Amino acid sequence: MTPLGASVAELHKSPAGARRPLDALFRPASVALVGASTDKNNVGRQILDNLLEFGYPGPVYAVNPRAESVAGLPAYPSLRAIEAPLDLAVLIVPRHAVLPVVEECVEKRVRGLVVITAGFRELDAEGARMEAELRRRARQAGIPLLGPNCMGLFNTEAGVRLDLTFSPVHPQPGGIAFLSQSGALGAEILTLAETERLGFSLFASLGNEAVVSHLDALEYAADDANTRVIALYLETFSDPERFLRVVSEVTHAKPVVCLKGGRTESGARAAGSHTGALATSARALEAVLRQSGALLVDSTSEFVAVARGLADLPLPRGRRVCLLTNAGGPAVVATDWLVRKGLELPPLTRAAQESLRTVATRQAVLGNPVDLTVEGKPEMYEHAARVLLNEPADMLVALFVEPPRVSGADVLAGLERAAAGSPKPVLAAFPAQEALRRQATPQHLTLFDFPEVAAVVAGALADYAEVRQRPRGDYLSFRVNRQRVARLLERARRMQRTVLDAEESLAALRAYGIPVVRSAFVRSAEELLPRARHLRFPLALKAVAPQILHKTEVGGVILNIATLAALKKAYNEMTRRLPLRGVLLQEMAPVERELIFGFRRDAQGIPMLLAGLGGLFVEALDAVAVRVLPVTDRDVEEMLEEMPGSRVLSAFRGLAPVARPRLVEVLLRLAQLAADFPAISDIDVNPFLVSARPADCRAVDARILLRGSTLSTGE
Amino acid sequence: MTPLGASVAELHKSPAGARRPLDALFRPASVALVGASTDKNNVGRQILDNLLEFGYPGPVYAVNPRAESVAGLPAYPSLRAIEAPLDLAVLIVPRHAVLPVVEECVEKRVRGLVVITAGFRELDAEGARMEAELRRRARQAGIPLLGPNCMGLFNTEAGVRLDLTFSPVHPQPGGIAFLSQSGALGAEILTLAETERLGFSLFASLGNEAVVSHLDALEYAADDANTRVIALYLETFSDPERFLRVVSEVTHAKPVVCLKGGRTESGARAAGSHTGALATSARALEAVLRQSGALLVDSTSEFVAVARGLADLPLPRGRRVCLLTNAGGPAVVATDWLVRKGLELPPLTRAAQESLRTVATRQAVLGNPVDLTVEGKPEMYEHAARVLLNEPADMLVALFVEPPRVSGADVLAGLERAAAGSPKPVLAAFPAQEALRRQATPQHLTLFDFPEVAAVVAGALADYAEVRQRPRGDYLSFRVNRQRVARLLERARRMQRTVLDAEESLAALRAYGIPVVRSAFVRSAEELLPRARHLRFPLALKAVAPQILHKTEVGGVILNIATLAALKKAYNEMTRRLPLRGVLLQEMAPVERELIFGFRRDAQGIPMLLAGLGGLFVEALDAVAVRVLPVTDRDVEEMLEEMPGSRVLSAFRGLAPVARPRLVEVLLRLAQLAADFPAISDIDVNPFLVSARPADCRAVDARILLRGSTLSTGE
Repeated sequence: MTPLGASVAELHKSPAGARRPLDALFRPASVALVGASTDKNNVGRQILDNLLEFGYPGPVYAVNPRAESVAGLPAYPSLRAIEAPLDLAVLIVPRHAVLPVVEECVEKRVRGLVVITAGFRELDAEGARMEAELRRRARQAGIPLLGPNCMGLFNTEAGVRLDLTFSPVHPQPGGIAFLSQSGALGAEILTLAETERLGFSLFASLGNEAVVSHLDALEYAADDANTRVIALYLETFSDPERFLRVVSEVTHAKPVVCLKGGRTESGARAAGSHTGALATSARALEAVLRQSGALLVDSTSEFVAVARGLADLPLPRGRRVCLLTNAGGPAVVATDWLVRKGLELPPLTRAAQESLRTVATRQAVLGNPVDLTVEGKPEMYEHAARVLLNEPADMLVALFVEPPRVSGADVLAGLERAAAGSPKPVLAAFPAQEALRRQATPQHLTLFDFPEVAAVVAGALADYAEVRQRPRGDYLSFRVNRQRVARLLERARRMQRTVLDAEESLAALRAYGIPVVRSAFVRSAEELLPRARHLRFPLALKAVAPQILHKTEVGGVILNIATLAALKKAYNEMTRRLPLRGVLLQEMAPVERELIFGFRRDAQGIPMLLAGLGGLFVEALDAVAVRVLPVTDRDVEEMLEEMPGSRVLSAFRGLAPVARPRLVEVLLRLAQLAADFPAISDIDVNPFLVSARPADCRAVDARILLRGSTLSTGE
Repeated sequence: MTPLGASVAELHKSPAGARRPLDALFRPASVALVGASTDKNNVGRQILDNLLEFGYPGPVYAVNPRAESVAGLPAYPSLRAIEAPLDLAVLIVPRHAVLPVVEECVEKRVRGLVVITAGFRELDAEGARMEAELRRRARQAGIPLLGPNCMGLFNTEAGVRLDLTFSPVHPQPGGIAFLSQSGALGAEILTLAETERLGFSLFASLGNEAVVSHLDALEYAADDANTRVIALYLETFSDPERFLRVVSEVTHAKPVVCLKGGRTESGARAAGSHTGALATSARALEAVLRQSGALLVDSTSEFVAVARGLADLPLPRGRRVCLLTNAGGPAVVATDWLVRKGLELPPLTRAAQESLRTVATRQAVLGNPVDLTVEGKPEMYEHAARVLLNEPADMLVALFVEPPRVSGADVLAGLERAAAGSPKPVLAAFPAQEALRRQATPQHLTLFDFPEVAAVVAGALADYAEVRQRPRGDYLSFRVNRQRVARLLERARRMQRTVLDAEESLAALRAYGIPVVRSAFVRSAEELLPRARHLRFPLALKAVAPQILHKTEVGGVILNIATLAALKKAYNEMTRRLPLRGVLLQEMAPVERELIFGFRRDAQGIPMLLAGLGGLFVEALDAVAVRVLPVTDRDVEEMLEEMPGSRVLSAFRGLAPVARPRLVEVLLRLAQLAADFPAISDIDVNPFLVSARPADCRAVDARILLRGSTLSTGE
C-alpha cells in the first residue's frame, strides 16, 4: 500500500478550493479496485499496476475474495472488509456482480464509482435493465459513476498521478484533457501519444454515460487548472439544449476540439450498433457543434494535430499568415490548405522585403510565401522568421524540407530563437524528418510533419481565436399571440389532422409577428367579392385543403388574376375541380429575392432552424444553413452569413442589400413558434420574399406539420 | 569506372524491343557527369556518389577540368576528352556554362541530357533567354533534355540501377513511377519513402520542362514494364488538349494519381512565383484531371497512401466494402470516410453472420462493420476475414487497435493468410502500432496507419476501377452552318464590337443546330406587327443592343404580352426609353426546368464548357459542372450527372425525366461552336429550358463575347 503522502490531503480539495463532485473520480483521496486480479493479463490487474506504477500517492485497496495479496498489496475479500473510509471504487467484476458491489459502495459511503465492466445497454435487454438500475442507485445515493463499459480515466497532475486505465503506456503530463465516447479510440490516441509526444492533463473514457455524461466531464475539464484544450470524441448526445449551454460556456474559456464519429448515415448506424444509442442526425450535430464554438475535425490525425497546436500555442489575433519555406512545391500545397481554411497570405511590406534581401540569396522569392530555396541556411531562417513575425500578419508557418547541406536541427533552433521573442503562434512543418521531430522539444513553436497539417492547425487557431472573440448572442423573446396558435393546433388535433393548411399556417406565422403578404381566406362563393375588395389586383388564387401537399402540381395555384371577372371565373373553375376547405386570395408581391425558412425535428427530436435560397429547384441543391434551437440573435446572424448563396442578401445585380435585421427577427420569431409548441414537427415558409425595405420582407406561403404526421421529414 | 557488365548491352533496348527516345535518360548505356566535384558536399559529387553506390552497371565518366580524379574515377577536362561514345550527359555546372557544354554534347552526339543547374526562366529575363536557347538547341539536335532546374531522375530496374539524384536516400524498387514538377516535393517524398517503405520504379524531377514535359515522362512511365502506378505532382500545364489525350490514354492502362499544387488562387500564385509559369485556373485543371481519369488527391499523405495502395493491391469490381474491426470508435470514423468516398457497406448475408457467430464472442457485433470487440483474437480475425472475402462485397478493410492481450503481428499474419486466397483488395489499418508497421512486409494486403487513410485508399481503388471500366466516349461532329457564324463574327469585328447581342447570339446557336424558342427580330415599328403575326401570344419583348448587359436591370424585358395592342404599347414605350438596335419578340415558353449552359476561357485560354441549374439566384451558389474542350459524348453525359442539383433532370416533383440525349447533343454542339471559333471567349446560354419532350428543350436567351472583351470573365 502506498503510504499516505503529504499531497494526499490536497486531493480532498480542488485547486479552486471547494471540492466538486467529480473530484471523487479525478482526485480521489483513496482508491479501491474491486476485481484486482492476480493474473497479470487481467484488466483488473493491469489497472492496479498502472495505478501503482504511475505514482498515485493515496491509499490503494485491492479487493479480491480469492487471493491473499495482489501485486504486493493485501487483498480484501470485500469492500466491507476495508475499515478506512473510501473515496473512489473501481469495478472490474462480472456484470452480474456490479449491482451488489454498488450496494456495498453505497453502504460504505463511497464518493465516486468507475465501472469498467461491459455488457450493459450495449449488449442486450438484460444489460439495459441492469444499467437502468445502476443509474437509479447511483443517482439516488448521489454518487458520480463513470461508465459502465469504459476503459477508465487518468489525471496527470503532480500530486495526483492517478492512472486508472489499462493502457499499456503511461500518459505524459500536458495541456490536453481527452474525453472519449469510444474506449478503443481512446486507446488508439493514448498509444499514439507516446510516439507523437502528446501531453495530457485528464482522460476519461465515458462508456455508456449512465450517470456522468460527456458534458459533466467537459465542465470538470473546463475548471481544471492544468487543462488548456479539451479534445472530445463524440458519437452521440441526448440533450442539445444542455450541450449548447455547456459547450458555449466552455468554449469562451477553453477550446473544445471535437472529432465526431457517425457524421454519415452509415457511420451513425455503426455508432448506434456499438453504443446502443439513437442516431442524431449528422446535420443537427454539426450545427450544435458549430453553434457552441467547438472546433470540428475530420480525422484522427487532424484531431491530434489540432489539439496539440491549441494546447501549445498562443492564439493569433486574426487570419493573416506569413509562410516561410525552402521548398516551392510543399509551400504551394501548404498555401492551398491555408486558403481552404480561410486564412490569408498578405503581401510583405517593403521594409520586410528589403530586410530579407540583405540575407537571402538571389534565387530567393521574397513574396508571401518567402522561399529561401535550397540555399536557405539556419541563420537566414532565423532572420527571416524575425522579420516575418514583425509583419502585420498574425501567425508564422515555417516549412523546411531538408536539403543535403543544411541541418534541420539548426534551422529549428533558429526558428525557436525567433519565436521566443514573439507573442504570435509559430507553426513549423519539417516533413520526412521523423528522427528530428521525435527528438526535438521546441518550447516556442509547434512542430508538425506535413505542411498541410500545419496549415490545418493554423486554421483551427484562427477559428478558435474568433470563437473567443465573438459576442455572446442574446436569447430574445417577442410578444406574440400564443393563444391564437394554441387554438389552431387544438382545432387540428380535434379533427385528427397533422397538417395545417396554408391559411392556418400563415395565420400562425402572423400570430407570431411574422409578416405575410396581404391575403384573405374565402370559404364560399358569397365571400369572394367582399374579400377581394380589400385587396389590390393582380391577385393569386390558391387552393386551401389540408390534404393537398403540392398545390402547383394539382393546378391549385392561379397567378396574375387582373380583374374581378377573371377572379370569379378562376374561383369557379378551381372549386369545381378540387375538393377544398376554401381558397386563399393573395396580393401578387413583386418577387425580387426569395428565401426558404424552415424548422424540422430530426429522428431524435432535435429541433433545427433552416434557411436557404428560394426558387423552384434550389431544393435540389439541398443548400441550407442550419442551427439547433435554442438560438441567439447572433446565431441567426451567422446562419444568414453562412447560408449557401448568401451573397444575394448583399448588394446583388443592381439590388440593394436586404433588410437583414428584419430577417434575423423573422427567424427568431419562427424559432420561438417552434419552441413554444413541441407538437410542431415541421414548418416550411416557402417562399419568404426579401428586399431592402423591411416592409417588403414577407411570407407568401407556409405549411406547418404536427408530430405524428407521415409527411414529416424527420431527417 | 564501373566495368562494362553483361547487362549494359541490355540498356540499349527497352523491354519492348525498340529503343524509345527517353531511354537515353532512363536507361542510358553510359553516363557522363559534367561538374563532378571533389567536394563531397557539392551536388555534382553527390549525384556521382549516388550513381556509383546504387550499382549502375554502365561506364561512368566524371568531367572536371580542375581535378585529376573524382571519387576514384579519372576526371576528364571536358566531354571532348572522352573517346568512347556517350549516351547521357548530366550537367551540374554554373548556368553560363550550360549552353557551351550542350554544344559539346551535340558535337559528341550525346543522346540524352539532364540539366540540374538552376537559374533559368524561374530566375530572371537572362535566364529565360538562355532557357529558350537551350530548348532550341536540344530540339534542333533531337536530344531529350530533362530540366533545367531539376533534381534528376532514377530508374530502379534490375540491370539498370540508375540513381541520378542528390537525394540522401537510395530508392527501394517498387511499382510507383513518381514524376514531380517540384524538386523539393520530390525530395520530401523520396525521404519519406524510406520510413514509409514506398517502392519506386522511376522518378523524374521535371524542372522547367524546357524540352521533356510531364506528358513525355508520363508516356514513358506508362510503357515501363515495372511501373504499376504513376504519381504526378503537378502545378501547371500548357496544353490541355494534349494532356487530355495523353492522360486519358494512360489511365486506361495504368492509374495516374495526381497531387495538384496551386488549386487555390493564392496557391497558384505561389506556384507561379517559383516556376515562372502562368497560372491555370483551378477549375480548368480539376476538370481536365477528372476528364482524363486521373485520381486527384488533396495532400502529401494522401498522395503517398493512394499511390502505395494502387501499386500493391488488385482492383475491386465495385464499391462495396466489408469492414472488420475490434474497435468501435475507429470503425465509426472509418465508416464515415468510406461513405464520404462513395463506398457502400452492404449488410452481411445470413450465412456470413452464422459463420461469424461460430467464432465470435457474444459481445461481437455481426453487422457491417463486424466488430469483434477487444476480445477479437488472431484466429477470429482470420476466420472473419475469410468469411467477409466470400461475401458479395468487393473489398475488405480490416482495423485493429491493439488491446493488452492480443498480438498485432499475429492478427496481421491471420489477415495475410485470409487475403492470400482472395482476388479482392484487402486494406488493413493498425493505428498507433508504428513498430509493427515498420517491420511487417505483408504480401497480400496493404497496411496503413489510420483507418481513415485505408478508407480513402479504398475509395481511390474503386474510383480507378471505374476509370478502367468506363466506356471511351466519342468526339462527335455535327453538320452546322459555320459560314453563318463566321459572318456574324466578321460583322462584329468590322464594327469593333466584342459582344454579340441577343439576336446575333441566338442566331449563332441556331446556326449550330441548338434549338431556340420561336423568336423574331424587329428593327422598326413597321416590322412589329408583320413579325408578331407569325408568333403565338403571349409574347415577350426584349431590348437588343450590344451595350446592354443585364436587360432586366434597365427594364429591357417585358413579359406576358397578351395582345397586339399591348405589344404596340410596350414596343413604343421601350424604344422611346432605350437606344436599341431593335427588339426581339419571343413566344413565352412555359418554364418547367431551366439550366444555364456556358463556355469560358480561363486566363491561360483553356476552353471550358459549363452546365448548371438556372434561375435568377442560382449563380450566387456558383454550382456548375465543368469540362475542358475537347469533350466526348461520355464527358458531357458525366457532366450532366455531376452537375450540382442534377436530380432535377430525373423525375422530380411530378415532372418526367428530361430528354437527356437532347441535352448532351446541345452541349456538344455548343462545344463545337466554341472550338470552331477561337475568337469566341465566352458563351452564356441562360436560360436553356429543359423538359421531357426533346422539342421543348430550347434556349431562351444567349450572349456571346469575343476575345478582348472587357466583359470576359477570364477566370
